[in-house]
Amino acid sequence: MAANDADARAQLIDLAAEFYDQFAGGQIPEMTLPTRTKSNIEYDPESGVWTYGDRTSTRSANSVRGARKLLKAVYTIEFLADQLEEGRSSTLRELYYLSESWDNDEAQFTSQDESNDLVEDLEIVSGVTREDFHMRPEESGATLMGPLRLREQTRRGEREIHCQEDVGEGGYQIPNNPDMIEFLDHDIDFVLCVETGGMRDRLVENGFDDDYNCLVVHLKGQPARATRRITRRLNDELDLPVVVFTDGDPWSYRIFGSVAYGSIKSAHLSEYLATPDARFVGIRPTDIVEYDLPSDPLSDSDVNALESELEDPRFQTDYWEEQIELQLDIGKKSEQQALASRGLDFVTDTYLPERLTEMGVQ
Amino acid sequence: MAANDADARAQLIDLAAEFYDQFAGGQIPEMTLPTRTKSNIEYDPESGVWTYGDRTSTRSANSVRGARKLLKAVYTIEFLADQLEEGRSSTLRELYYLSESWDNDEAQFTSQDESNDLVEDLEIVSGVTREDFHMRPEESGATLMGPLRLREQTRRGEREIHCQEDVGEGGYQIPNNPDMIEFLDHDIDFVLCVETGGMRDRLVENGFDDDYNCLVVHLKGQPARATRRITRRLNDELDLPVVVFTDGDPWSYRIFGSVAYGSIKSAHLSEYLATPDARFVGIRPTDIVEYDLPSDPLSDSDVNALESELEDPRFQTDYWEEQIELQLDIGKKSEQQALASRGLDFVTDTYLPERLTEMGVQ
Repeated sequence: MAANDADARAQLIDLAAEFYDQFAGGQIPEMTLPTRTKSNIEYDPESGVWTYGDRTSTRSANSVRGARKLLKAVYTIEFLADQLEEGRSSTLRELYYLSESWDNDEAQFTSQDESNDLVEDLEIVSGVTREDFHMRPEESGATLMGPLRLREQTRRGEREIHCQEDVGEGGYQIPNNPDMIEFLDHDIDFVLCVETGGMRDRLVENGFDDDYNCLVVHLKGQPARATRRITRRLNDELDLPVVVFTDGDPWSYRIFGSVAYGSIKSAHLSEYLATPDARFVGIRPTDIVEYDLPSDPLSDSDVNALESELEDPRFQTDYWEEQIELQLDIGKKSEQQALASRGLDFVTDTYLPERLTEMGVQ
Repeated sequence: MAANDADARAQLIDLAAEFYDQFAGGQIPEMTLPTRTKSNIEYDPESGVWTYGDRTSTRSANSVRGARKLLKAVYTIEFLADQLEEGRSSTLRELYYLSESWDNDEAQFTSQDESNDLVEDLEIVSGVTREDFHMRPEESGATLMGPLRLREQTRRGEREIHCQEDVGEGGYQIPNNPDMIEFLDHDIDFVLCVETGGMRDRLVENGFDDDYNCLVVHLKGQPARATRRITRRLNDELDLPVVVFTDGDPWSYRIFGSVAYGSIKSAHLSEYLATPDARFVGIRPTDIVEYDLPSDPLSDSDVNALESELEDPRFQTDYWEEQIELQLDIGKKSEQQALASRGLDFVTDTYLPERLTEMGVQ
């Protein structure tokens, strides 16, 4: 077992031991977790990301329902501990189905939400990430393209891959657990995270990664954990600036938010997944006005989402308040590919160079 | 300009020339297209796929609306012809936005559906595929993993890649236009197309591609054109059997249908995209019963979808009628990962080997 795996396993066993000790001491076993709602996430100035606040809730075995929850936790801990010992992995969905084979019917999950939530609970209380439990997501991360040479530790041995020279036009597929990657050498000046596949392909076709020494990370909409993790590592370990390029609508600002500040659902992992240094390139509401981009009117749900962002602690900065208020004012949103209304090269010849210079990145 | 590109360009110019000739001959210009509905697709015994029937509809310039449609077609033809000449490419969405820069306001698209439909119309009348027009999809194809060495022609030169030895655990990312790939050599016995990422990862973790000499193609839900195209080419050029492994519900049967028989939307491309030899491994309703898989009850929309499949010419075979009727009878559906209820190795040690032997593939 790798040192990392042994460590994760020990954390899990400690949890089970705690229940044991509670029993032994004549106490009703319980597990305490931070409350996971928007009102209980707060800014941690030290790490620069949003984390859970002080409010907690307790799962206690003092009811049948609560006892059943802890029973499921114990069975899951056993499964995960075995999985780590055997060097295997599984998906959240497999865990749900696998519970049908457990000898105790009461320990079986009744829905996938239940098993998903439990794994998140275990992440929070153990301080070990899902990836370190060897739980894979259903869908893998996206792709990288740019001047980076890396080494990936696969089950079939090590692979050294240059993310321009050794890959096709599709780029390098980020594995489920990007901590299996070691960065070897690079010629990257900055990391550019891009929301849509169409724009990612435009940048690659126009050779933007080559001309500007940038690593293009495809976010593929709301980014998978693997994509956010590798972005964080690029920023952390290689000390590279990270900029995020999305559509100009409230849903895309959330994509930026999850890259930069973490998400409410995974606030316990912000230090592992979020890149507080990440900055937003656009499409900004200001760009819609300045570049006179083709736009669509905001729908009611867009307006609601913008208003809820004004309340979201992650967006309470002068920059975002100004942009969101401008957007509510003009009542418009634009897609990143709307830049094509000025020609296919406008984004790489004009828009990005101007914005990156303004931001001091280039 | 590559020979292929010159050819595609010539087909487009021919179309424009037809309008010109109609004008010159004092006729009102028009364009005739096959009607694109389920009732107008029929089985072509020669190619083994479903194609459009004889019913057609005509776009004529005898109304302002019709004239505007043909005007847009002509502007789009010019754009595509220039794009081919310059060796560039673009996405459907970029085309939509780009039309804003056209000098004639009447030629500009009013919605993305309009430009998407027009490009499909041009595919049908010219007999040239979108990929050969250099129109990229928004999202790229999925990944390959298995004993295949290929050469991809990229904008940055040729890349030789072995889809096990030269890739990470994420596999080889299929490029937008898989016709840029040449198959070099392989040790593949059969191609296994898999719907979900979780199952794809399970097969790769368990070394199924290695043990069974199979190429695992991740479909990622409803497969992109690039994924269907490469599957067709593997079957055609390398003469490899193709089997499809999905969830056991009506939506997944449609995924199989689009791989094997083509889709209604792209019936004009069936010979290019469909793999009529492809066979369905499962999850079959029979499997839900035989292997006593964990299941969910069919929803109303599931039942409707199954009933509409019974009417769909692509599913009018004894095999599918029996399976669909059994499913309506038992009222259940199962996911492919439900096989994990028998343990994580059940799918690779028992289920797939049994099914493949039954089917005569292994």
